Amino acid sequence: MILEAAAAVFDELGFDRATIAEILARAGVTKGALYFHFPSKEELALAVLHEQVLDIAVRPQQIKLQEFVDVGQVLSYRLRHDPIQRGAARLAIEPGSNHLDRKQSMLAWTAFIEGLLKESKARGEVMESVNVRETAELFVGAFSGLQIMSKAFSNQGDLSQRLTVFFEHSLPTIAVPAILAKLRLEPERGAQLDAELREHAALEDEEAAEEGADLLDAAP
Amino acid sequence: MILEAAAAVFDELGFDRATIAEILARAGVTKGALYFHFPSKEELALAVLHEQVLDIAVRPQQIKLQEFVDVGQVLSYRLRHDPIQRGAARLAIEPGSNHLDRKQSMLAWTAFIEGLLKESKARGEVMESVNVRETAELFVGAFSGLQIMSKAFSNQGDLSQRLTVFFEHSLPTIAVPAILAKLRLEPERGAQLDAELREHAALEDEEAAEEGADLLDAAP
Repeated sequence: MILEAAAAVFDELGFDRATIAEILARAGVTKGALYFHFPSKEELALAVLHEQVLDIAVRPQQIKLQEFVDVGQVLSYRLRHDPIQRGAARLAIEPGSNHLDRKQSMLAWTAFIEGLLKESKARGEVMESVNVRETAELFVGAFSGLQIMSKAFSNQGDLSQRLTVFFEHSLPTIAVPAILAKLRLEPERGAQLDAELREHAALEDEEAAEEGADLLDAAP
Repeated sequence: MILEAAAAVFDELGFDRATIAEILARAGVTKGALYFHFPSKEELALAVLHEQVLDIAVRPQQIKLQEFVDVGQVLSYRLRHDPIQRGAARLAIEPGSNHLDRKQSMLAWTAFIEGLLKESKARGEVMESVNVRETAELFVGAFSGLQIMSKAFSNQGDLSQRLTVFFEHSLPTIAVPAILAKLRLEPERGAQLDAELREHAALEDEEAAEEGADLLDAAP
């Protein structure tokens, strides 16, 4: 609850103008409780950055390269709807008066995308000429900028559409033709995939709870 | 001089942490002189944003689409070397505690790029399927993000290289093949074009000065 409130304030005001007082008011907790968990504004920002999910585990697809598209579309959707992702995005991009290492998120995300592209290439889905590291960095850089532009013009409302344009323009130089023809790039995909992921996570929680109950039943 | 000093301070510290005292120290002017021209920090930021050149008039090329590439590469080069462009880029991207309309630079740049692409399309250099508005917005968004990434990792040292990767990945879906084969995308182009533009501007200044002298000679 504290982290969601902090992320929302960082998203709206940026690190420098965010105040502990504002975060307390939104989270509805006492000063003591907040300082117990997070001794400073910088600790709070760091926790929001840690809480963001960049290595989004999308559902496995027959075409691995589809997962590259899906990760981007799920993140686009969450940047519109999830306070943690929104707050983290602003913290990661905006150099404020803090000692946070903004490079960390970009590096972590690049490594994750590079892994997806490498696996796609090993399967023969990606053209031999593609330098997967370079392409992963292009994706992360371009995505950051599209996100800023979308935030300025539509508060992330058109980010999925902008990302689809990026994919339409770059995938023809990444995917082999037979794969390219089968990729699904539509901007609505993010919302649908996010709902599926939530449902899946809820089911897993239920199964885990049942297993726990079974274990208790079997206990002597 | 004041504007260059202000731009350098905005580039290093961002709008919120930039102080008039720091700008005065760098510009070496008195408080009175500065306030006479710019009554507030916001006025200074606005002037830096106005001073930046986004509609870079590159030398005309046989292939119009080459000018699209050239504009990007010249701006990349200037973002590395020109304090005004650097300061304006940070002001345009970073939402600080000011009332500057950050959308203005993005809109102006998009309109300029869209114009170049439209002209290229009218000449048959750009594929019929290309939506020039969408492509111009993709370029501006992606460029902003590549610039942020390059600043974080190499203080703009590798921006030209990153931009070349963007062009390599997107031009095959923009240019018709016969044009694509002739485009020059190498990252070194920015430095070379910038030098040519400066030389050209110096020559024009000289000619204008000579014309002025002739007019004086001819005067009764």
